[in-house]
Amino acid sequence: MPEQIKIGIINVSDRASAGVYEDIPGQSAKEILSDYLLNPVAFEYAVIPDEQARIEAQLKQMADDDGCCLVITTGGTGPALRDVTPEATEAVSEKLMPGFGELMRATSLQYVPTAILSRQTAGIRGSCLIVNLPGKPKAIRECLEAVFPAVPYCIDLIGGPYLESNTQHIVCFRPKSK
Amino acid sequence: MPEQIKIGIINVSDRASAGVYEDIPGQSAKEILSDYLLNPVAFEYAVIPDEQARIEAQLKQMADDDGCCLVITTGGTGPALRDVTPEATEAVSEKLMPGFGELMRATSLQYVPTAILSRQTAGIRGSCLIVNLPGKPKAIRECLEAVFPAVPYCIDLIGGPYLESNTQHIVCFRPKSK
Amino acid sequence: MPEQIKIGIINVSDRASAGVYEDIPGQSAKEILSDYLLNPVAFEYAVIPDEQARIEAQLKQMADDDGCCLVITTGGTGPALRDVTPEATEAVSEKLMPGFGELMRATSLQYVPTAILSRQTAGIRGSCLIVNLPGKPKAIRECLEAVFPAVPYCIDLIGGPYLESNTQHIVCFRPKSK
Repeated sequence: MPEQIKIGIINVSDRASAGVYEDIPGQSAKEILSDYLLNPVAFEYAVIPDEQARIEAQLKQMADDDGCCLVITTGGTGPALRDVTPEATEAVSEKLMPGFGELMRATSLQYVPTAILSRQTAGIRGSCLIVNLPGKPKAIRECLEAVFPAVPYCIDLIGGPYLESNTQHIVCFRPKSK
Repeated sequence: MPEQIKIGIINVSDRASAGVYEDIPGQSAKEILSDYLLNPVAFEYAVIPDEQARIEAQLKQMADDDGCCLVITTGGTGPALRDVTPEATEAVSEKLMPGFGELMRATSLQYVPTAILSRQTAGIRGSCLIVNLPGKPKAIRECLEAVFPAVPYCIDLIGGPYLESNTQHIVCFRPKSK
Repeated sequence: MPEQIKIGIINVSDRASAGVYEDIPGQSAKEILSDYLLNPVAFEYAVIPDEQARIEAQLKQMADDDGCCLVITTGGTGPALRDVTPEATEAVSEKLMPGFGELMRATSLQYVPTAILSRQTAGIRGSCLIVNLPGKPKAIRECLEAVFPAVPYCIDLIGGPYLESNTQHIVCFRPKSK
């Protein structure tokens, strides 16, 4: 039986946090991750405005205090003045993982040429992997599908729990030996 | 009738600025952009040496004082000691747009393996998008063709004017709604 | 007759430096480079633990004191706490070359989805090009094959020696004129 894990989901959106929009991106990310994983997952959940200090504080809480091995953000990765999710992610990460952003942009480029406007990245804080996703559910799915196969092994390498994927939904990869 | 816009073009080149070479890169960028856009364009234009302080000052003037919504640089993106255009761009940008450099290098790689030597990037300063292009006219065209489809929407998102493209030359993309 | 050149190879690995493992990555990189180059090569060689200060000191010695035009590192590019080769490379480089990491990750992605976990990069220090490679011999070969075609021209541009490649093993590229 796979061990229980904790995953944080942060919807970064001025309008969703003000209640103007429903939190569809966060719910979408939660459903996809539930499909992907055989581990029982306790989700930590937040909807916050596009303010860098707030995003940083939320990332730290989920990584350090709540013990999440994975934190997903949605939204706030574009070129607009209020888009600061990547800056917050960089500020709290000990290591940046440029390959995540590169692959997500390359994947989204197969659908829309404006994919290059996304500045999404990923980083490591302690034993937690933080991944920025876009704000639209369709793009969230495309990006998670692209990068998730590397997530369980990444979490192994940073000393997190052992994630087991549901191969009916996603095929993950672990090299045979180190 | 599309509104008039201002675009800055900076040819960064020790030799062109010393009059040794004609400014072919700058003229080439200007022609391509004139083909791409239905808006009447007032071009600001400069040919300057590969000196970081000079490039930064020129970028600031075009973005802040001249009111350009787009500034294109050509040249100075390689590994040589005098190549400092990306450093100047990073220094004056509030946000960096890594997807532009990634896509331009991936595009140029289809033609030459030395495309990976280009360090070109893009960034946002206020309501102005700055994009580094290579120095050779053929590569300028290839790179602009690759990234321009995302430029009008990017300028929308940073509060700039509404760019209309000439679909006979380039097809740009704006998502239907946010 | 091609001129003699110096190349540094640094295997960054706690276990190899402690003698637990043989230095297979370093030997592998050496063999591949010997195949690729017609120049007689004097290799500088080091096996050191995953400590940033040690890696930085070794990179500086090979670039500044030993006169290497190319330094290859193997290992230490992942997300784990001890993986700090990219940080050391960035710290000693005057310019970073993001295209190398992008292309190596894109290449490795054709083989394993965990390629996005590699943070490998490249940089310029004086007249020396530093390139991070992964730690596994198979991945070392795949990555070198991808980026080496641009290496001789890069070394031209930074004022290093003239590298001549063995076209039976690798085809390098130099643009016809500047």
